[in-house]
Amino acid sequence: MPAPLRIGLAGLGTVGIGVIEIIQNHAEMIAMRAGRPIIITAISARDPKRDRGIDLSGFAWEDDPVALARRDDVDILVEVMGGHEGAARAATEAALEAGKDVVTANKALLAHYGQALAEKAEAAGCTIRFEAAVAGGIPIIKSLTEGLAGNSIRRVMGVMNGTCNYILTRMEDAGLPYEMVFEEARALGYLEADPNLDVGGIDASHKLSLLSSIAFGTKVAFDGIEMEGIGAISVDDIQRAGDMGYRIKLLGVAQMTGRGLEQRMTPCLVPQDSPLGQLSGGTNMVVVEGDAVGQIVLRGAGAGRGPTASAVMGDVIDLARGIRTPVFGIPATKLAETVSAHSAAPSAWYLRIRLVDKPGALAKVATKLGDAGVSINRMRQYGHSDGDAPVLIVTHKATRDDILTAMAAARATNVVVGEPVALRIEDV
Amino acid sequence: MPAPLRIGLAGLGTVGIGVIEIIQNHAEMIAMRAGRPIIITAISARDPKRDRGIDLSGFAWEDDPVALARRDDVDILVEVMGGHEGAARAATEAALEAGKDVVTANKALLAHYGQALAEKAEAAGCTIRFEAAVAGGIPIIKSLTEGLAGNSIRRVMGVMNGTCNYILTRMEDAGLPYEMVFEEARALGYLEADPNLDVGGIDASHKLSLLSSIAFGTKVAFDGIEMEGIGAISVDDIQRAGDMGYRIKLLGVAQMTGRGLEQRMTPCLVPQDSPLGQLSGGTNMVVVEGDAVGQIVLRGAGAGRGPTASAVMGDVIDLARGIRTPVFGIPATKLAETVSAHSAAPSAWYLRIRLVDKPGALAKVATKLGDAGVSINRMRQYGHSDGDAPVLIVTHKATRDDILTAMAAARATNVVVGEPVALRIEDV
Repeated sequence: MPAPLRIGLAGLGTVGIGVIEIIQNHAEMIAMRAGRPIIITAISARDPKRDRGIDLSGFAWEDDPVALARRDDVDILVEVMGGHEGAARAATEAALEAGKDVVTANKALLAHYGQALAEKAEAAGCTIRFEAAVAGGIPIIKSLTEGLAGNSIRRVMGVMNGTCNYILTRMEDAGLPYEMVFEEARALGYLEADPNLDVGGIDASHKLSLLSSIAFGTKVAFDGIEMEGIGAISVDDIQRAGDMGYRIKLLGVAQMTGRGLEQRMTPCLVPQDSPLGQLSGGTNMVVVEGDAVGQIVLRGAGAGRGPTASAVMGDVIDLARGIRTPVFGIPATKLAETVSAHSAAPSAWYLRIRLVDKPGALAKVATKLGDAGVSINRMRQYGHSDGDAPVLIVTHKATRDDILTAMAAARATNVVVGEPVALRIEDV
Repeated sequence: MPAPLRIGLAGLGTVGIGVIEIIQNHAEMIAMRAGRPIIITAISARDPKRDRGIDLSGFAWEDDPVALARRDDVDILVEVMGGHEGAARAATEAALEAGKDVVTANKALLAHYGQALAEKAEAAGCTIRFEAAVAGGIPIIKSLTEGLAGNSIRRVMGVMNGTCNYILTRMEDAGLPYEMVFEEARALGYLEADPNLDVGGIDASHKLSLLSSIAFGTKVAFDGIEMEGIGAISVDDIQRAGDMGYRIKLLGVAQMTGRGLEQRMTPCLVPQDSPLGQLSGGTNMVVVEGDAVGQIVLRGAGAGRGPTASAVMGDVIDLARGIRTPVFGIPATKLAETVSAHSAAPSAWYLRIRLVDKPGALAKVATKLGDAGVSINRMRQYGHSDGDAPVLIVTHKATRDDILTAMAAARATNVVVGEPVALRIEDV
């Protein structure tokens, strides 16, 4: 049997320990599948003393992950520290400079520096694999880069932040307001230290930017994503969307339009009986639409020790087998400059507007919508106990610009109370 | 750019034409992704004269696919003729003997001769790729062999025959009996020339046998599959299962048990609100359970020109990139002999028994079930207009042997009318 593939493991958090467990528990199975043994020779983490519930005495220790990446007895770097600056970036660069492949779970690093890192990797004849960075255990990077490589991709969609989907599902099931479920999620440890990474859509947008690059052969353009978190969603919205046959999801969508690459991560309504609409709790889902294959849906755990470590090991086994594709599917130097098009594709919209209880109020707003080119498909007016009357409107297809114009015009009347809500209804 | 990968295409049915279309429409995109051009140099089919709606004049023609496989200007054989004997087998063997990789959509060929062909391929230093053979456009072979390679697989399940799922969905939606929907499906061209391939579960079992081999590292054992078609399912069963929160699917299940590899392709009840239960129409779904990743669900079109050609092209692009893994994930010579265990795993069961309208009939049957070690979880007795009383029983977990014993004992009483129905309730 050929020589073992020797891993330097940077990061001993939940994912790092998961990787060690898989390699220890399945050494023989993995060697059979990879065609050679896979071993960990050296490790690095912030605190060498912390008890991680696992025997680490068999591995060489490095305080500095850069030194780890450079060790002679390390063939590839597995980077599961996280953070898009500092140690993670430095260790990744050090590994590539030493001609070593990198397997990473670090979506933020690649969302910010993916292009430069991919160019560096490919110039050195090596690669960066990042299955674990997107949608946890779901093999979406491999499916998109390899399995569906014969397709021109039309659209990629995904629910890729389990915490947001948990919060929205819990709001629906328990009828609890956002703020309360947010605190529950924090108490359960579901939220990042900076919760805005989750509920603001940043984490999910990191992932979407990587999918876009592979799907459309464009440079990673995290800054080109239209991003909106879930903080403005009310239980009312969820219930009323439900009445009309929809569920609200924080949905990432990337598609190539005539005006450029449209990427957005916003709360959207999707039909309750669609695969995306049926997704509840912390599970992730990615939907890929290709010109030949039609619609492919992948669903699974988007986070957690086992699923994320599974994705890391899929990449490691590929490298052990000698499978080494360009980082983003085509050589980094051939990725196209990204022209970002904000919300170019029209869609139906869900509008929630509170009106003062006066004759003609609704007519006034409807006129403003019409003037902006937004036509109404369905409308419901609810009872009003406190003087205001919430009106729900489902529009025919309209662009985001038209909707924003219409909302501004409606607000400028004297019949609208508070801030209207406009959510896209994604055609899935 | 390196030299093109030159395809010899055997078979110009719907899939073959789909492959030509993708290569013609996306030549540049594919060359970018594959790192080299992919071209078709020669083709073969039964009838050179038939108009296939596409210009074939640019390709060399071979009447004999074996001669095609041996041509000097052919690097790999794409076999999309079908049939598990004769030309498809001979052409595949000829290609392997000439040291050429083969991409095939032929599930029957691999289900019957996969082991011998894989050994032949690997001895010659080449491989056979067959993503298109299982679940159409869904990249399940790649996901299982590569993406999830770090997992010990616990169970693989799938709805992998779109025609059966169409028939069952249509029976449910329209309330039409099996025979009538079967004729509809035949008229629509959904059925194979030998319909038993579809409705008898043979086609889906071919696919399951390939998944089992990869998942469990065992030799393909098509003959070890417990197989039962959908012909005995009544609208009554579908509706009554629905009343209890279930849907009936022709479900393939493979799992490793203490007694050996259990493989079955039988009509099962699955919860309506599970991903499998929500699958309607001709769509396919495969569910993989791994020890690290948990449950991964893949869903997409299981047949048709585009989806199947997409899968073929994924394999072809892999080969052009130099990705060449063992046929069944580990070297064929290391695949374990398969010890088949029929229905070793216990489960709950749905039983439908018609009883004569006499006092004590139900007690008599319940006693027989109890004697066989089958305990009752839920029971419903329906009204009886024609003298017989249908009884529906959901059992606690029981093995298939216990159920068969109990059913035989019940039939041997004088209170059971006709043939009882026993369907497994799969825990998904």
